[in-house]
This record gives sequence, structure tokens and C-alpha cells, in this order.
Amino acid sequence: MAKEIVLTGVTTTGTPHLGNYVGAIRPAIEASRQENTESYFFLADYHALIKCQDPERVKQSRLEIAATWLACGLDTDKATFYRQSDIPEIAELNWLLTCVTAKGLMNRAHAYKGAVDENLANAQDPDFGITMGLFCYPVLMAADILAFNAHKVPVGRDQIQHIEMARDIAGRFNHLFGEHFVLPEAVVGKEGSILKGLDGRKMSKSYNNTIPLFDTEKKLQKGINKIKTNLLEPGEAKDPDDSVVFDIYKAFSTPEQAAQMHQNFLDGIAWGEAKKELFTLVNSQLSEPREKYLELMANPAHVEDILQAGAAKARARAGAMISDLRNAVGLVNFK
Amino acid sequence: MAKEIVLTGVTTTGTPHLGNYVGAIRPAIEASRQENTESYFFLADYHALIKCQDPERVKQSRLEIAATWLACGLDTDKATFYRQSDIPEIAELNWLLTCVTAKGLMNRAHAYKGAVDENLANAQDPDFGITMGLFCYPVLMAADILAFNAHKVPVGRDQIQHIEMARDIAGRFNHLFGEHFVLPEAVVGKEGSILKGLDGRKMSKSYNNTIPLFDTEKKLQKGINKIKTNLLEPGEAKDPDDSVVFDIYKAFSTPEQAAQMHQNFLDGIAWGEAKKELFTLVNSQLSEPREKYLELMANPAHVEDILQAGAAKARARAGAMISDLRNAVGLVNFK
Repeated sequence: MAKEIVLTGVTTTGTPHLGNYVGAIRPAIEASRQENTESYFFLADYHALIKCQDPERVKQSRLEIAATWLACGLDTDKATFYRQSDIPEIAELNWLLTCVTAKGLMNRAHAYKGAVDENLANAQDPDFGITMGLFCYPVLMAADILAFNAHKVPVGRDQIQHIEMARDIAGRFNHLFGEHFVLPEAVVGKEGSILKGLDGRKMSKSYNNTIPLFDTEKKLQKGINKIKTNLLEPGEAKDPDDSVVFDIYKAFSTPEQAAQMHQNFLDGIAWGEAKKELFTLVNSQLSEPREKYLELMANPAHVEDILQAGAAKARARAGAMISDLRNAVGLVNFK
Repeated sequence: MAKEIVLTGVTTTGTPHLGNYVGAIRPAIEASRQENTESYFFLADYHALIKCQDPERVKQSRLEIAATWLACGLDTDKATFYRQSDIPEIAELNWLLTCVTAKGLMNRAHAYKGAVDENLANAQDPDFGITMGLFCYPVLMAADILAFNAHKVPVGRDQIQHIEMARDIAGRFNHLFGEHFVLPEAVVGKEGSILKGLDGRKMSKSYNNTIPLFDTEKKLQKGINKIKTNLLEPGEAKDPDDSVVFDIYKAFSTPEQAAQMHQNFLDGIAWGEAKKELFTLVNSQLSEPREKYLELMANPAHVEDILQAGAAKARARAGAMISDLRNAVGLVNFK
């Protein structure tokens, strides 16, 4: 039986934090170890250019994210790990798909519509400040997926629409030029995979409430200490289900450890003590990958080699695909 | 002094006709012989996909147009002659430019607005039937031009706006990431370069009023015989300035020949006679290239070799450019 192809992309604008680790990196790496799947992981650096016009940030983030995934145990012998911008076939497919995508479909994209609504609310021109990058993004994302005929694409809830658009575009191409594409499916992570940040909202760079994943031990401790808690004293019972400390603890612990900590909360554990235990738990799981991460960050040439090898694997597949598609649309060599 | 770079693209959907020859092919080839210019000619086969979803047509047209330009004397040692779709750097640059292009700019493109107006006139959704290919076309055209930092782009009047958009996009990129692009200039052909078709309107595939360039001698004759004339008898004076026969004659003749034919019209030359002279003149100039054309069409592998060599030349240049641009936006290798 053919393996199921699972594809995951990470936009390279930020520095990975605990929320990325729990919500995306860890489950994706675990899933990639399954025998019946073939995993593609890529650094979505073309997508990064849509929102980030700071070359140093893009550059740094690509390295940090690559090093993070490798440090967290991504097995690049099994999975295919590459930078989007190293695969020219994706840019080419982007154009082939652009030609069959209805403009009306893009008009309905949430991200675009959100930007338009904001402009209207500010009495601006609807398209004020909106780039073609933002508008065309779902087509590029379809190219990312369809270049490898991925069956499953793990995404956040906000990305489901993009997968539906990729299906729509793939279906249109198939209709016009024959059955070339599998229709991809979105796989939405479990509710529990969204970690809370310092202030209790979803941990996210945009909320500035993150705890960095691979900063120093000291910074990790400092981050954990900054988690907002209430004024309950030691000895007073605390509600674990309304606590970021417990939320993060649970994300790293075994069920038994979680049950114990749950009890400790009800028993009135002091916030300082709870945070200390949280730090110990998280740090014990991160110290080894952190060391690997720092090694990789100190040796970018090694990361480059790994990514080049990944690009070669990815291009072999995407190259065969684009060659079929070129045939289908009439871009055929004369001999 | 650095040579001036001139870039010309031909969309590969049709079969070249006399109007293409007089209006585009002949002047472009003549211009490419100048010492102080460096010419790029390309088959715009990515653009063809916007309006043509018939693979056989695209395929055939690419070969016909390539063979036509070669048969008409394009010197590929001097000029760089390639297929757009053989240059992956163009597709990549297309994305880099997409990220800096304002959507509002594309909203104002004539071709898009024309399609919207037609929809509104038919009480349709404004974007009914409009693809992203049509909408994004000016960005791809900017990539075609900017990949080679072309100074001059010979275009028809209807394309001037696209060159202005390419300037706008180039300026925006330069502003954000440093001076990488020359701002290209449109060069609009002389009025006289637009040939009239069988019915007196501009010769154009869309009017179905063309005379094929390299069909058989017999078909050329038949085409010329189909030119619409009035009912004036032999011996009656005819107005050369209101005659397609004279219009085409003039486009192929020396000024002396044209003056003589002008006089013949005033002297009342018979339409049959005038058409016969027109055929003799045109055929004398086309018979040699027609032979070459048929040879090339019979040997597509040879055309392929020429285009591959052209692609290698073009990629050397576009590759250096895209490498600079990748650096500028932050897509830098780690070693």
C-alpha cells in the first residue's frame, strides 16, 4: 500500500517558542515516525516574505527553525526536510495553478477579507496596504501541497480554508488537464495542542506572551516566573483548569504527573513551588535538545548540508510532478 | 559603454501572420542587429496558459513561433532566444515581486478592468470567469523584464501600462531592498507598423482577418485574393490610402516601388492586377524564409537545441540576478 503523504510548513519569521513546540513541532515529529506515512517538512520562506521585509529576520529565523526541528529529533533519513525557496518547481507550479484559479476564490480568503474589513473600518480604500503576496498566498500554499500530492496537511483552525482552496484549485486543474492531483485534506490538531501564553491567551508571537523554546536555562526560568497567577496564598486551593502553570505542566508531563500536580493545586501548592516544578519538568525535557540546538546554531554549514540533501530529495519528487504537469498543459520540449 | 538591453516576448498561442511579421518580427530582428544593443527574445509560454487551455495549441504555437523567428533571420549568436518556461528564475522572481506589489496596482490594469466592465454590463459578478492568471499577469511580465534588467521593451500601445507597472514594482523593490533594478521603458512601434487585415481593420487573430505568414505559396495567394476591395472597375482611379492592398504593398516595398504603385492606383490599375503584384512582391520576400521555416518545422529537435542553448545563456544572466535578489530579501544559504 502506498504511504500516506503528510506535509507541514513553518513560516520563517519568528523564533520557536514553547507553544510552537507543543502545538506543532512535537506532534509532527511524532507523527513522522509512523511507518505508514511519508513526511514532508519545509521552511516556508517564500511565505515569510509576505509579511517580513527584514532580511536579517528572515535569515535568522530560517536557521533557528531548521535547527529547532533537527534538535527536536526530526529524522531526516525518514522525513524530507527542505526550504521552500530551494525548490524552484514550487514557484513554477505556483504559476500553473495561478492560471486555473478563479479570482473570486481568492476574494473570499479570510486573511484578505480581514484586511479589507480593517481598511473599511478605518475609512480607507479597501485594498489599502494590501500586497499581492497576501492576496495570492493561498495559491502558493496550494503549490506547496500539490507539488508533492500530499494527502494530509496538519494545520491550525485558521488554515482550514486554505486547504479547501487547495482542493478547489486541484480539482479545477484535474478537470481541465486530467487527474494529476490528489485532493488534500486538512488535519486539525486537538484542542489540547494549543498552549496558553504568559497572560492566559493562546501563546503567540503576536500577543507577545511567549516563552522561548531554546533560550538559556535562565531565560526559561525567567519566562516561567513571569506567568500571570492570581493572589491565592500557599495553602489555599487553586483551580488547575484556570491556570497557565498547570496548562503548560500538563503539556509536558505524563498523565500520572499531571494527576499529581492537579492534586497539588487542590491542596494549595504555592505558586512559586508550582513554577519551580514546572521549570524542572520542562527543562529536563528541553536540556538535551537545547544542547543539540546550540551545536547546530554554531555550525550553520552542517544545517545547510542537511537542507541541501533534503532539497535534492524533494526536487526529485516535485521535478517528476512538474514534468507531468508541463506535459499536460502543453509546455513540452520539441525532442 | 554598457549595451542597452532590449527585451521582446511573444505569447505562444497563435500562428504568425503577416501583421506579426511587419509589426513585430521584422523590426525586432532589424533592431537586434544594432551594435549597441543586447537583445532578449522569448516565447511567452507561461503567458499563453492564461488564455489557452488547449495543450496542443500551446505546443504547436511554441514551435511555429520559434521556427518563424529563426527563419526570419534572428541571429541567436548575437541575441538571446529562449522559452520563458525554461527559465525557473522567472517564476521565482515572479513570487519575490508578488510580495512587494500593491494589490491596488493590479486592480487598475486595463485588461482586468475591461473584463470586470464586461461582467458588469452582463449583470454578472464583477470577477465572473476571471482567473488569477489574468489578474496577476502584470507581475509575471515585470519578472520577465526585470530578470534581465532590460532597459527597453518594444510593445504595442495596449501594453504601455504593463511597462509602467513593471517600473512601479521595480521601484518598490528598490526602495525596500536597495537598488537592484533598472526602471524599464516602453518603446512603442511607429503607427505604420500596424498592418491592416482582410477587412481593413488591424490584422489580428481576434478579428479573423489575417493572412498567414508561412503557409504555402498557394494559401498566401488565396489570402491576398480575399482582401476586401471596392467595386471600382479597371481604368477607374483608386484611392491607395483607403486600400488594404496598397497598405500591405507599402509594408513590403521600397519607397520607389510604393510611389510607383501609388501612381498605378491613381491610374486605375485593376484590383486583380494589383493583387497579383502584391503577391509577387510579398512572396519574393517570403519564399526563402518560408523554405527555412519548413525545414525547421520538420526538424523540431534542432529548434530545441537552439532554444536550450538560449535558455543556458538566459539562465546565466537571470541566475546571477536572482542570486543577488535572494541575498537582498534574506533567502541566503547558511554557508
